[in-house]
Amino acid sequence: MFTLYYAPNTCALASHIALVDAGAPYALKLLDFGKTEQRQPDYLKVNPKARVPSLATPRGILTETPAMLAFIAQSFPAAKLAPLDDAFAFAEVQAFNSYLCSTVHVAHAHRMRGHRWVDDPAAIVAMQRKVPESVGACFDLIERHMLRGPWVMGAAYTISDAYLFTLARWMEADGVDPAQFPKVAAHRQRMSQRGAVRQALAEELVPVPA
Amino acid sequence: MFTLYYAPNTCALASHIALVDAGAPYALKLLDFGKTEQRQPDYLKVNPKARVPSLATPRGILTETPAMLAFIAQSFPAAKLAPLDDAFAFAEVQAFNSYLCSTVHVAHAHRMRGHRWVDDPAAIVAMQRKVPESVGACFDLIERHMLRGPWVMGAAYTISDAYLFTLARWMEADGVDPAQFPKVAAHRQRMSQRGAVRQALAEELVPVPA
Repeated sequence: MFTLYYAPNTCALASHIALVDAGAPYALKLLDFGKTEQRQPDYLKVNPKARVPSLATPRGILTETPAMLAFIAQSFPAAKLAPLDDAFAFAEVQAFNSYLCSTVHVAHAHRMRGHRWVDDPAAIVAMQRKVPESVGACFDLIERHMLRGPWVMGAAYTISDAYLFTLARWMEADGVDPAQFPKVAAHRQRMSQRGAVRQALAEELVPVPA
Repeated sequence: MFTLYYAPNTCALASHIALVDAGAPYALKLLDFGKTEQRQPDYLKVNPKARVPSLATPRGILTETPAMLAFIAQSFPAAKLAPLDDAFAFAEVQAFNSYLCSTVHVAHAHRMRGHRWVDDPAAIVAMQRKVPESVGACFDLIERHMLRGPWVMGAAYTISDAYLFTLARWMEADGVDPAQFPKVAAHRQRMSQRGAVRQALAEELVPVPA
């Protein structure tokens, strides 16, 4: 049994979708960011980074979405969520996920989490102003160079699809017009019709009591 | 044969060390950032992100350090650079590498690459002011919670060691005092005595002509 610590509308959704895709047994633990539960002592014992997601496994805690996604894919090979027998193809999946984590998510985070990198309130506002451009540049790269279609890696659905869907849902709030990126928009649409995605979204709207 | 596109004092060093550790056949291609070679058409064909590192392989190009490191470890299993037969232990390696990529490197990048996230010159200065604190907080977390010793994952040397060494070398320039983090400082010292590290550093000081 796995336990996914999450908050709604965070990147935890990617691992949540992957757990459903994998047919993994899992429970959800909602963290209330409004009550800063992610910074309370109980949760810091789970994840001293004070972030979501975390995945409790029988072997211990895992964090960091790219690592969790690859772990879920490797733990449930029958679900074929990554090309596990081809190191180069697996690395392509990992490279895509790493770009989402370290560049796309980071560009997005400058809108609401600017305090991580600056104290001056005027600088926080200046950061927020650039988010439509910096996040837009990321999706432009994904549209033109990375998303093969119909899935990220081409014919085969992978963990990269769950992750792209999760971050692409933030576009509008980041001031980026999805109509500029038709392949990404079509991918979002395609993903939103999958049962695993609908199930994960429904479960996050109706949180399991802690 | 692999070709590593790199620039000195960048995170490309991590993959360079791993290639030496692996006993992989490789060539180096230096990009002159002073001449913005990373943004010239020739290189954009290799990596449209206009960043280093990139790794040309017989199957195609890979980018993103965590993906490249895992690929090198999987491609040369005899070198035992990651716990390839244990999905959980492998995920721990990946989680550490993902943290370096998406949090530590990003905090550091606010010192010299602030233009990625803001246009206002005053905001760039404000970002630079916080780098000692934000990078210091990362190394505090690594020191207290992540670095098991003697190597990152404990008794076994892994790709995470090459990556930590690479980013820990930036501490002083980021205004972080290594003496505050004795385990990280001892790891750096331990790494600097390894033959593969000395070879990679020497090769980057005497670049191979393009």
